[in-house]
Amino acid sequence: MATPVKVHGPPLSTAVSRVLACLIEKDVPFQLIPVNMAKGEHKSPDFLKIQPFGQVPAFQDEAISLFESRAICRYVCEKYAEKGNKGLYGTNPLAKASIDQWVEAEGQSFNPPSSVLVFQLAFAPRMKLKQDESLISQNETKLEKVLEVYEKRLGESRFLAGDEFSLADLSHLPNAHYLVTATDRGEMFTSKKNVGRWWGEISSRDSWKKVVDMQKQST
Amino acid sequence: MATPVKVHGPPLSTAVSRVLACLIEKDVPFQLIPVNMAKGEHKSPDFLKIQPFGQVPAFQDEAISLFESRAICRYVCEKYAEKGNKGLYGTNPLAKASIDQWVEAEGQSFNPPSSVLVFQLAFAPRMKLKQDESLISQNETKLEKVLEVYEKRLGESRFLAGDEFSLADLSHLPNAHYLVTATDRGEMFTSKKNVGRWWGEISSRDSWKKVVDMQKQST
Repeated sequence: MATPVKVHGPPLSTAVSRVLACLIEKDVPFQLIPVNMAKGEHKSPDFLKIQPFGQVPAFQDEAISLFESRAICRYVCEKYAEKGNKGLYGTNPLAKASIDQWVEAEGQSFNPPSSVLVFQLAFAPRMKLKQDESLISQNETKLEKVLEVYEKRLGESRFLAGDEFSLADLSHLPNAHYLVTATDRGEMFTSKKNVGRWWGEISSRDSWKKVVDMQKQST
Repeated sequence: MATPVKVHGPPLSTAVSRVLACLIEKDVPFQLIPVNMAKGEHKSPDFLKIQPFGQVPAFQDEAISLFESRAICRYVCEKYAEKGNKGLYGTNPLAKASIDQWVEAEGQSFNPPSSVLVFQLAFAPRMKLKQDESLISQNETKLEKVLEVYEKRLGESRFLAGDEFSLADLSHLPNAHYLVTATDRGEMFTSKKNVGRWWGEISSRDSWKKVVDMQKQST
């Protein structure tokens, strides 16, 4: 590989850290390019050329620019199929379909309530913004229902998509990490037998520990 | 193919109709299995075995069961790569990555506000539920911002992911159809030069017309 791939955005962003965890699992060298969101750099004309919604991350690999963290992760797994963790996106079509459905469950069912809770409970106080108690309560109820489905699923299989760690589990790390380590709602995960066991296992992977180190260094 | 694939759920559901449009584009025979949601059949123990979140659609193909409409569509495109519209999910890795990022943009940016608006503006009145004006207003603003990005993008390329109709465009049909045909907010699409041209083109595809016919027959 001539040049490392480029990831534009701060590692503290959940979407950026999802891509970083994937790149580290896949052992794909990358260059992290800072985007100062406080200064509005993500809304600059140059940035909008590679990320038209003005969000992070943006991603570049040779001639291709991509956005949307889960799409970037799928691309990395396909393009660098022979590198690093070869099973991250499955090694046959059925495994891949199972992983994909749980990546979608993360994006459609887990992410909406958990990202609201991360913002309201972890970021709003640091930014001295008023918390919306009604929004917190609604989304806590929603997330609890999702985690009850996960509790059952993780009683049947070691990881979400089967017996191996995959992109489906990885995709949950960024939001779950903040909820467990930076809010008082961690018990939603840790008090559940199967979800707690799963969280302990996925959050102690070397790849994720490296991402957490990058987050600490950036603050 | 020994038996047709099975789609469980009502065609009026946006997620079910996304899968139906994909199957028709791919010329894959399917059997539609009714799920009476008014009677709570989607929460029955048997249904939860194939769709643990109790949502529609659920999908079965030989030994595999899948949920999440966008994951089902990707699976159908991969498994039946040689059938029907061969370019629906791209014919090379770069095209596929571009399609995938716009499918994710639909799932993460377009779907959240548009599904709220579809429910509030099209379904709530039929169900005699009170509309939430504040929620409608917030989501109208969000959707407008998303459509401004689309307007720019569709000034540069005929379809979202490039010059060919793809899963990325298809994925927008269910919510956009209700907004244009069953609410008074259709101008958000039709009054924009490029978005309006795109909507006209994607909504007049034979595959989508067949889905709309199925929706009409089911009411």
